[in-house]
Amino acid sequence: MDDDPATEILEATYRALCEHGYADLTMKDIAAESERSKAAIHYHYDSKENLFVEFLDYLFERYTDHLTAAEDGRPRDRLFELLEVVLGETEAKPGQEFRTAMLEVKAQAPYAPAIRERLERFDEYLLDHVTETVEAGVEAGEFDESVEPGDAAEFLVTAITGAHTRRVTVDRSTEELANLLQGYIERTLLVDEKSEDAD
Amino acid sequence: MDDDPATEILEATYRALCEHGYADLTMKDIAAESERSKAAIHYHYDSKENLFVEFLDYLFERYTDHLTAAEDGRPRDRLFELLEVVLGETEAKPGQEFRTAMLEVKAQAPYAPAIRERLERFDEYLLDHVTETVEAGVEAGEFDESVEPGDAAEFLVTAITGAHTRRVTVDRSTEELANLLQGYIERTLLVDEKSEDAD
Repeated sequence: MDDDPATEILEATYRALCEHGYADLTMKDIAAESERSKAAIHYHYDSKENLFVEFLDYLFERYTDHLTAAEDGRPRDRLFELLEVVLGETEAKPGQEFRTAMLEVKAQAPYAPAIRERLERFDEYLLDHVTETVEAGVEAGEFDESVEPGDAAEFLVTAITGAHTRRVTVDRSTEELANLLQGYIERTLLVDEKSEDAD
Repeated sequence: MDDDPATEILEATYRALCEHGYADLTMKDIAAESERSKAAIHYHYDSKENLFVEFLDYLFERYTDHLTAAEDGRPRDRLFELLEVVLGETEAKPGQEFRTAMLEVKAQAPYAPAIRERLERFDEYLLDHVTETVEAGVEAGEFDESVEPGDAAEFLVTAITGAHTRRVTVDRSTEELANLLQGYIERTLLVDEKSEDAD
């Protein structure tokens, strides 16, 4: 167990969220997963929303660590690696309970500005990361010079978001969708998949 | 006012859902929007979930009516028209409250088989509709013969789903995303945007 009370509470929040979902989650549920009492948790966080905002910050830190881990290699390979990080389904990845709870949280965004702000941070980080990778690919001559990095990134982030939603809603494998996105990158971004003779 | 009690209750459900969201919605809220008493509503539907399943069937009927309205013209134009139907933002379209409530409902899918079944029906209908339109385009020689209609449809439906989620979560315009999808169709499906000399 982590000795830092904040981290221990956030890890308990993760477990409680997977078990109860977001709408039904109470401070009592979190206390039940924690080594700390409900009163001790209230001492750190005065409301479920405040605790949850901290929890999203904690997830964001882990998320950016995972994404920056895929920063070596050619831009094309970095994009494929990124798809694996955000859409791969392995035992080490969060399960359906967590993904479902996060979809519930997304539906809170219009009513909870602090939550929306955090969700925007995830979206923008991914968008910037993909934009920079596509830009690097265009500069290196690996991606077609007609590719507009911002548009390609917006498109990929939208498809990645849709893959997460459909995984929860209609149980569509995100890994299969990652393969389709890889096909999109090969067909529309890469120079060597297009006519090399084009002006 | 519609005299059919079922339709009147479903219309009241729509208004109550926009006002309260799904998690907090009660039969009492629906009665408050209806001409009928809570007891009369309970007479028709014995639980909120059962009422909601009927509500999704009612939405599905309207949805398929809108999509089949875009069945004339060339496959390329039908796809663009479909993007306008599912992603266009006009005053006549459901607002942010409704979209947010539907995202909440999507997060219920893993825990409510009857709701999941309905959501799958929406997803499959759109998937089939796009697949058939792309198939028609390939047959007519308008789309490239190397295009795999099922894959292109899966890709477009995933991006459309992501556009709906991001509209709620990060307030990204679905109309702008529709333009990006139109660009995708032009670049990767249409024959005349690719090298005409290709084998």
